[in-house]
Amino acid sequence: MGASEKSSTRSAVLTELYEFAMADGYYACGLGETIACFDLFFRRVPDNGGFAIMAGLQQVIEHLQNLHFSEEDLQFLRTQGISEPFLDYLRDFRFACDVWAIPEGTPIFPNEPIVKVRGPVVQAQMIETALLLCINQQSLIATKANRLVRAARGTAVAEFGTRRAQGFDEAVYGARAAYIGGCTATSGVLPARKFGIPVLQTMIHSWVQMFDSEYEAFCAYARRYPDDCTFVVDTYDTLRSGVPNAIRAFNDVLLPLGRRPKSVRIDSGDIPYLSKRVRKMLDEAGFPDCGILASNSLDEHIISDMLAQGAKVDCFIVGERLITSASSPLFGGVYKLCAVEQPDGRIVPKINLSENVHKITIPSSKNVYRLFDMDSGKAIADVLTTDSEELDDSKPYELFDPDYTWKRKEIENYVARPLLVQIFKKGECVYDSPTPAEIREYCSEQVDTLWDEVKRFENPHKYYVDLSAKLWEIRKLLIEEYKGVRK
Amino acid sequence: MGASEKSSTRSAVLTELYEFAMADGYYACGLGETIACFDLFFRRVPDNGGFAIMAGLQQVIEHLQNLHFSEEDLQFLRTQGISEPFLDYLRDFRFACDVWAIPEGTPIFPNEPIVKVRGPVVQAQMIETALLLCINQQSLIATKANRLVRAARGTAVAEFGTRRAQGFDEAVYGARAAYIGGCTATSGVLPARKFGIPVLQTMIHSWVQMFDSEYEAFCAYARRYPDDCTFVVDTYDTLRSGVPNAIRAFNDVLLPLGRRPKSVRIDSGDIPYLSKRVRKMLDEAGFPDCGILASNSLDEHIISDMLAQGAKVDCFIVGERLITSASSPLFGGVYKLCAVEQPDGRIVPKINLSENVHKITIPSSKNVYRLFDMDSGKAIADVLTTDSEELDDSKPYELFDPDYTWKRKEIENYVARPLLVQIFKKGECVYDSPTPAEIREYCSEQVDTLWDEVKRFENPHKYYVDLSAKLWEIRKLLIEEYKGVRK
Repeated sequence: MGASEKSSTRSAVLTELYEFAMADGYYACGLGETIACFDLFFRRVPDNGGFAIMAGLQQVIEHLQNLHFSEEDLQFLRTQGISEPFLDYLRDFRFACDVWAIPEGTPIFPNEPIVKVRGPVVQAQMIETALLLCINQQSLIATKANRLVRAARGTAVAEFGTRRAQGFDEAVYGARAAYIGGCTATSGVLPARKFGIPVLQTMIHSWVQMFDSEYEAFCAYARRYPDDCTFVVDTYDTLRSGVPNAIRAFNDVLLPLGRRPKSVRIDSGDIPYLSKRVRKMLDEAGFPDCGILASNSLDEHIISDMLAQGAKVDCFIVGERLITSASSPLFGGVYKLCAVEQPDGRIVPKINLSENVHKITIPSSKNVYRLFDMDSGKAIADVLTTDSEELDDSKPYELFDPDYTWKRKEIENYVARPLLVQIFKKGECVYDSPTPAEIREYCSEQVDTLWDEVKRFENPHKYYVDLSAKLWEIRKLLIEEYKGVRK
Repeated sequence: MGASEKSSTRSAVLTELYEFAMADGYYACGLGETIACFDLFFRRVPDNGGFAIMAGLQQVIEHLQNLHFSEEDLQFLRTQGISEPFLDYLRDFRFACDVWAIPEGTPIFPNEPIVKVRGPVVQAQMIETALLLCINQQSLIATKANRLVRAARGTAVAEFGTRRAQGFDEAVYGARAAYIGGCTATSGVLPARKFGIPVLQTMIHSWVQMFDSEYEAFCAYARRYPDDCTFVVDTYDTLRSGVPNAIRAFNDVLLPLGRRPKSVRIDSGDIPYLSKRVRKMLDEAGFPDCGILASNSLDEHIISDMLAQGAKVDCFIVGERLITSASSPLFGGVYKLCAVEQPDGRIVPKINLSENVHKITIPSSKNVYRLFDMDSGKAIADVLTTDSEELDDSKPYELFDPDYTWKRKEIENYVARPLLVQIFKKGECVYDSPTPAEIREYCSEQVDTLWDEVKRFENPHKYYVDLSAKLWEIRKLLIEEYKGVRK
């Protein structure tokens, strides 16, 4: 390991100060044990896509299972105005909330709760920062990876972003998320070891530069890695130097050892053109089994375009534009209070109106159902209901748009699957996380339940996320109450 | 602390597998102890700006000082094809390179070495990933923060991005970089504690929603935090509910306690308009000392625009668009071999030609000088020379553009300051890092040495980064050699 525990950022006090200040305040007001319900949801799909991929739950679980405060943490919070009674509370902290979440790998849509927390408000409040951080980061990268994989239409996509990641954690958990989203491999040793992701090795330019000639560099590499032999061919000139030298080295070193080459990598220039020329040169030289890797600031649009132009690529290596989701680097998850349980047991739904219409929240603690067409198996819509409702899929169901309520559609012959799964029960984890490989497989199956119209990149169909009539009514009444009656 | 050492990502094996594979290969070929020189540089300023801000060096130092490999690391590398002799080398690893860097907080420009490494090629190669990761992340955020701070023209800018950061590390080190770039405060407890950054506290919407009315929520908060009293005023309706309730609570709770309000926060709606109305309401109610904080997906362009429209804001709170540098989320630092020392002591400059002209590297181990005009104190140009040259600033110097060599300019009356400082000497750290507060101060001073033309956002003047005649000649000869003579 490279550094000491002292430098770890995976700390309970990563949290923003205002979370502690609010929690301390609730505690001081006697509201600390009041049961509150929060929703974590997002408002916009990155890259204006039709859906996102849920990821990061496993890291939420690890964070919540390890939530405790050291004396050093408490001492620092003391200097920031946190009160002694609340510091005592934190010293003996024991997580006691219920948590539900949509499992990792599931396609998710704006405005639906993807994590739901119910518990003493001091606790449910304080965990906001870490929940958002884990879910925002990994859902962002899993969503981007899935776009790349869809663009590649069956050609492998490898994640090579460590050096351009926005931090150590981003590199490691980003690699996990990219794998969940469908990437086949990573360049990083640590994510490979932690999450069982296959590692892809390649040659880099400095290897070629270290030798007196490109040919010598290739021969030396072939001798050291005869079973995993990939050459980077664009250090000096791909077609006039790189590929001819690669073929010579394959013939001179690999064949006498009874081995076959693995691939060549093109990292610059016009890849559709070069890849076709390189393919032809390799085939004619007797190496039709030698693959071609392409890298150089790729994204889903470049990949689509390359394939449309007939590029001969066996694996796309994607770095910076995946690991940062460069074209849309934010997953704007938010965490909002939606209900409070009064001492008398009454559950009061809560709304946040804001000055921007799109920021108005959906009150009440909720269920999320995904409705699948029984014939095609395709997902038709998601429906949010109050906690107390059950969606009976033996009966026809009328969907309606929560904003344009005249948009209505009655459906039959469907199954309704609840999406939220309980993760913590009174602070105890009750969920066994699947492995990243299992989540990746599940993700691929679930993405297959979406219509192509939802999956396309340009102007995707807006998937329905509707409210039950009851939930819609509660929201309408609260808006009218706050906008009509001044408090 | 929230999690165990086991989950730390600050590991020597964060490194990409191909780095180990290359290093193992050099070792196997007998090249392992060959002295190689690498440059870390970037090619493009984020947001098409005129300059970037160097940051992340302290984390590079920490990483290099803690570089060692556990048996678990070695066991995993063994499964990935790394050879036993090289695993033995890693087991007894002792860092032995020389490292120079441009100090944190310095304005930096494309194509100049900002970190320079000289040492046994196995070592100099392996540290590539971690060096790039640290410098790319923090330089990106420091650069963005400096843009925000320049846009705010003296109004404070606070960093509130933790929840939207691309990972735990990004949140913490991003806060450090934002502070270096000129932000005044952070929301995060951990970066505040680790780096001595002031923390800014605020109220969030769920506090307001937890109470039966907005007025009660404000009163309860004022009682708990009479000395740090900030209300968020847009939960229901800023002008009709939030500010009137805030004023009532100031009068009813704070004044009787002999305290004054700190601020109100507007998080949605038309902030220039609302802030002017809110300012007037507060002034008329006798609270001209109550500040106004503005948040809601701000960036440098929105801030400039708000100020141009006369917004009355005392602190801009910037979250997601700072902590991810959302409009330009990549700092494309690269790490390239530039020279190799032969056993006979001869130093051979190395070039990487690539198929893209802008990716052609500058060979030789280099010095970087910044030339300052003696009268104005302003920076005129940076000049790269070979290691063996000294730039004598008592004589006139002819600058020339390395691409358009007919662009020439002779300067006199200047001082030449070498920018690279030695950080490690044969593996021992010989540099005392300033504190983040000192770096922030230095950054501000150094940005002041740049002309306004370099600092503007739209079409900034391209600052000169020129090559010495000798360096230019070496590069030209190498290009001719590789492009003229086929290898």
